[in-house]
Amino acid sequence: MFAKETYIARRAKLKQTLGSGLLLFLGNDESGMNYADNTYHFRQDSTFLYFFGLPYAGLSAIIDIDNNREIIFGDELTIDAIVWMGTQPTLKEKSELAGITEVLPFKEIENYLKAAQTKKQTIHYLPTYRAEHQVKLQNWLGIYPGTEKPSVPFIMGVVNQRNYKSDEEIAEIEKACQVTADMHLTAMRMVRPGIRESEVAAAVAQVAYAHDYQLSFPIIATINGQTLHNHYHGNRIKSGDMLLLDAGAETEMGYAGDMSSTIPADSKFTTRQKDIYDIAVASHEAAVAALKPGVLFEDVYDLSAKVVMEGLKDLGFVKGDAMEAVKAGAHALFYPCGLGHMMGLDVHDMENLGEVYVGYDGRAKSTQFGRKSLRLGRKLEPGFVHTIEPGIYFIPELIDLWHGQHKFEEFINYDKVATYKDFSGIRNEEDYLITETGARLLGKKIPIHTEEVEAIHC
Amino acid sequence: MFAKETYIARRAKLKQTLGSGLLLFLGNDESGMNYADNTYHFRQDSTFLYFFGLPYAGLSAIIDIDNNREIIFGDELTIDAIVWMGTQPTLKEKSELAGITEVLPFKEIENYLKAAQTKKQTIHYLPTYRAEHQVKLQNWLGIYPGTEKPSVPFIMGVVNQRNYKSDEEIAEIEKACQVTADMHLTAMRMVRPGIRESEVAAAVAQVAYAHDYQLSFPIIATINGQTLHNHYHGNRIKSGDMLLLDAGAETEMGYAGDMSSTIPADSKFTTRQKDIYDIAVASHEAAVAALKPGVLFEDVYDLSAKVVMEGLKDLGFVKGDAMEAVKAGAHALFYPCGLGHMMGLDVHDMENLGEVYVGYDGRAKSTQFGRKSLRLGRKLEPGFVHTIEPGIYFIPELIDLWHGQHKFEEFINYDKVATYKDFSGIRNEEDYLITETGARLLGKKIPIHTEEVEAIHC
Repeated sequence: MFAKETYIARRAKLKQTLGSGLLLFLGNDESGMNYADNTYHFRQDSTFLYFFGLPYAGLSAIIDIDNNREIIFGDELTIDAIVWMGTQPTLKEKSELAGITEVLPFKEIENYLKAAQTKKQTIHYLPTYRAEHQVKLQNWLGIYPGTEKPSVPFIMGVVNQRNYKSDEEIAEIEKACQVTADMHLTAMRMVRPGIRESEVAAAVAQVAYAHDYQLSFPIIATINGQTLHNHYHGNRIKSGDMLLLDAGAETEMGYAGDMSSTIPADSKFTTRQKDIYDIAVASHEAAVAALKPGVLFEDVYDLSAKVVMEGLKDLGFVKGDAMEAVKAGAHALFYPCGLGHMMGLDVHDMENLGEVYVGYDGRAKSTQFGRKSLRLGRKLEPGFVHTIEPGIYFIPELIDLWHGQHKFEEFINYDKVATYKDFSGIRNEEDYLITETGARLLGKKIPIHTEEVEAIHC
Repeated sequence: MFAKETYIARRAKLKQTLGSGLLLFLGNDESGMNYADNTYHFRQDSTFLYFFGLPYAGLSAIIDIDNNREIIFGDELTIDAIVWMGTQPTLKEKSELAGITEVLPFKEIENYLKAAQTKKQTIHYLPTYRAEHQVKLQNWLGIYPGTEKPSVPFIMGVVNQRNYKSDEEIAEIEKACQVTADMHLTAMRMVRPGIRESEVAAAVAQVAYAHDYQLSFPIIATINGQTLHNHYHGNRIKSGDMLLLDAGAETEMGYAGDMSSTIPADSKFTTRQKDIYDIAVASHEAAVAALKPGVLFEDVYDLSAKVVMEGLKDLGFVKGDAMEAVKAGAHALFYPCGLGHMMGLDVHDMENLGEVYVGYDGRAKSTQFGRKSLRLGRKLEPGFVHTIEPGIYFIPELIDLWHGQHKFEEFINYDKVATYKDFSGIRNEEDYLITETGARLLGKKIPIHTEEVEAIHC
């Protein structure tokens, strides 16, 4: 945890923003895999962590602005719990670390909220992303699951604080990025024909776990990199393959790193691979060079897509004006995802609060295939932390679909594209902080140019 | 998956047992960590796996005995899902692998169940262990969360099939046990002063993940083995410590292994450690020697506890008649957990269905501290698979509590016990199949005697 002053200041700012009402923070519970007591690793809700810092299951909190109270609700451990799970500080001791002096038994939260309803206080809550949240809102506030109405002022208040990373947060994210970089270096050193994807994924995970860190998201380690979020690890790597690794670490405090790399199975990329890979890197570096405060990130996305289309034009995959193709959405055949996303206490920071608020400052998102997956589109500001991750993918199902629909035939040479349906995909990803004057890479630089990757790989 | 005939036969048997009504099987959904799309690894419900085999999220199933229909409800992938998550067989193709020919879109399950309610069919469902199950039962059947009434005939029908492992299941469990044994051998080779618990846990996890297996439960790797389910991995191992490792692998099909070992930090156990460790092993071996069909497992538990108390009496920790002490519950100061539990598709097999049904054949469980944690108490039968895991623990909080209460002073020499409050705890655990004539160890034997552990450890 940070010092309690951090949490006190964060809450004070949020109270000032909202001005009145009651803010309900749902902490997370343990989450059963195949029965209640066989739990996944515990992950506290990120907004709860941001304002209260406590990484324990079974807590929720209220900031009652109208009555100037801040309360953490939870239960003390029983002797059975101590025998099985070990001892912990008391709830009072824990809460004091977050600068909270008022604690109440967990069952009291229902009474508190019902009394607030009776008094016609405005009760603000955030979007739910676990069924347990829905059950609580129903029990406490009578809201039927699926009919929640999250508070937009509460969402905006949280987003407008969490989007701007403080120095102590940046230091924490940098720790995550250092370990994340080591995860990728480990993979670059071990990928070779004959080993299984699962062996790479296991070694990559080990790096995070050995630091007593978690994974910030499930590892992608696949020879089928054309599938953007492919979590299947059952293939054996063959000569001629590339392994796409997308993996990141999460610190004890919950801050994430997120990087991607594309590693040849053999000691060198083939010419066919290098030709496409170099375009992806050119796109990546063009995007990075454009990063500075005041720039619209959606423009950087357009730029990165234009570089992809220009490169593919040189190779005969596409034709016509590259930027026209991008504006029309033709690039999404090869680049159907975004350029990057905010990163912090969540690897896709605050995705549960709504990308429109987090990444678009309330502006409507495009619904165009490809562009709609751009999670960040707003003007960049100092303190933003986000990823840069353009990619080039040959997705057989998408190629067949578009080809059959004669889609964008003015831009795409399907005959040439069809010969690359077995190519798979390429993505490199780094994490950047927007500074007053530009952008700074977070974590140590991992190899990105083919010769650098080949050098560490040998 | 097994051949479809396995699933067809399992369902036929269950239908015959129940005779009439409608059986609802809730498959599991993806489970979000800190936002909906950042999911924990997917784990299908074990009973769904047992009867339908399909390891995919977003499915549920109905066996409508009254109308002789077996239906899997689910949705086909969209092109967006294929781009992001990869392609899969169609629902029809998947279902045919389980011998199911009728599939319907997921939203149809609500209509089907509401029609069954109208027709006054008896709708059987199992206990819930995720809030998502509660939300579904409310949406589909109008059951308010927390007021579910699971079907005892359905529970008993499932338990009476899943408790008896078939040859193909035993082969699968044996695969899990082989990898589980390798996890422990890995730890035995690496534990030494100076490394962190997290490094051991990471290396142990890597063994499972490299096989593309999962962990069957969160790893326990702790120098504070007196805490029975201690998942904290932040300590550095010091000379004089023992590391208690409790870890197991889960195969692709979901079958579990579960073993424990206690490893000295140094090349040899100290005399003080060896004295206690040898008693734990004697208890373990006495229990194993007693395993055969017809034996009441609670009697084996009593035997194992008696051996512990006799050993501790020789060392001066306890006094009086050992078996009398066990019957009174005094042993639970040192041995506050059970001797073993059923194991199969869940590491604590069917814990969500109720231990009374699974482990006690409907007989009421003891409420005595210690004995109440014995998950298995019934007469052993061929085909049962269970663990053997007696232990000896010195739990400072429990010692202080009982001492203050003058509890069992006729059996316990608290002055001597108090000098061992820093001892930590010892547990060894193996997995056994009850055969027609006795019991068979599953997976290769891992070192258990001090000299064996020391030999591999050096």
